[in-house]
Amino acid sequence: MSFTVDVRRRALAANDAEAEQLRRRFAGERTLVTNLISSPGSGKTTLLEATARRLAGRATAAVIEGDVATELDAERLRAAGLPAYQILTGGACHLDARQIGKALTAAAFPRVDLLFIENVGNLICPTTYDLGEDFKVALLSVAEGSDKPFKYPAIFARAEVTVVTKVDLLPHVRFDLPAVERQVLSLNPSATLLRTSSATGEGIDAWCDLLLERAARKRA
Amino acid sequence: MSFTVDVRRRALAANDAEAEQLRRRFAGERTLVTNLISSPGSGKTTLLEATARRLAGRATAAVIEGDVATELDAERLRAAGLPAYQILTGGACHLDARQIGKALTAAAFPRVDLLFIENVGNLICPTTYDLGEDFKVALLSVAEGSDKPFKYPAIFARAEVTVVTKVDLLPHVRFDLPAVERQVLSLNPSATLLRTSSATGEGIDAWCDLLLERAARKRA
Repeated sequence: MSFTVDVRRRALAANDAEAEQLRRRFAGERTLVTNLISSPGSGKTTLLEATARRLAGRATAAVIEGDVATELDAERLRAAGLPAYQILTGGACHLDARQIGKALTAAAFPRVDLLFIENVGNLICPTTYDLGEDFKVALLSVAEGSDKPFKYPAIFARAEVTVVTKVDLLPHVRFDLPAVERQVLSLNPSATLLRTSSATGEGIDAWCDLLLERAARKRA
Repeated sequence: MSFTVDVRRRALAANDAEAEQLRRRFAGERTLVTNLISSPGSGKTTLLEATARRLAGRATAAVIEGDVATELDAERLRAAGLPAYQILTGGACHLDARQIGKALTAAAFPRVDLLFIENVGNLICPTTYDLGEDFKVALLSVAEGSDKPFKYPAIFARAEVTVVTKVDLLPHVRFDLPAVERQVLSLNPSATLLRTSSATGEGIDAWCDLLLERAARKRA
């Protein structure tokens, strides 16, 4: 087993080195990069669709989309007006920095103000792979239950922003929002929590304002 | 990379060998073993709570519970009357056969008719790790969206049973049940699909009948 751990440690070190190169590139291009991580079906793609509508004309944006299989999400995002490059991991459970570097080259990405990386739907494995992002965003749908931050602590400890999604479903599910806030803040006292519904639009302005403010700060 | 792949292949081969030992043990004990796999928050624990209530007095049952962190799920299941042994993976994204073997020894599990293994919340990584189960069960909550089988094909291809959960939320979410059925059956033509709501009890009888019928067949 220690042999396996060692292989994993070396893979993570190699990833960190590639992520630092990406971070320098994104700094030079003044692109704000977010790494969106959640369970499958928490609403990452739907949030990005709503974000594209709200940001139109205010900032340029693009997406690198990670999935085990299918180009469905990239197609949805392109239909929403976002340039989207699909990475198919072929079974792998997370994106890595090398894949992001290749995507940027292959796609000849336009210089954008905001680059969203939508990671593979998985609350565990993507957490430890730095992709050169400015910050990680964890999404948690109210349909998933309010015990998740303590059950999956690594991502909620590392995400600067936790977005509680699908709050339009709150009347129909058992979900203790204050309990989630307490868990997230105990794991990461400086975390920002947002509550959103891509269906009703609730919270989308606050999310976009946060992005635009952070993007302006990076350009300054 | 090929080095990493080779390490992974050897780990899977070792796991398969341990799983075969477990399978022989479970055959000898006439215990029906299911391996429940889904995203975080799809309702695995809640389904097992509802199952425990419905099976009380009709079959003996126990649970091996896999989580990255916290004993919350095992505590819930014990409160529902199910003997539950918690495995904490400490960050690992799936259970393996060795952990199951250790749990059976450490816990001195009673011989039961039904052993449920609730895997770590993750729709990807647990798929390839045989735990000696009779069959895998994939859960998909209607809040997760109806594109999931094609987006995460490996688990839906391998699961004998797909349980669509939280159908009480159908009036409040966009979810195309016939589309999900078409995807699952195209991935696995012999799959059984069930629709359930642990909140209303819909489908719980059909699920328990399936388990009892399979358990009786194994004892025969």
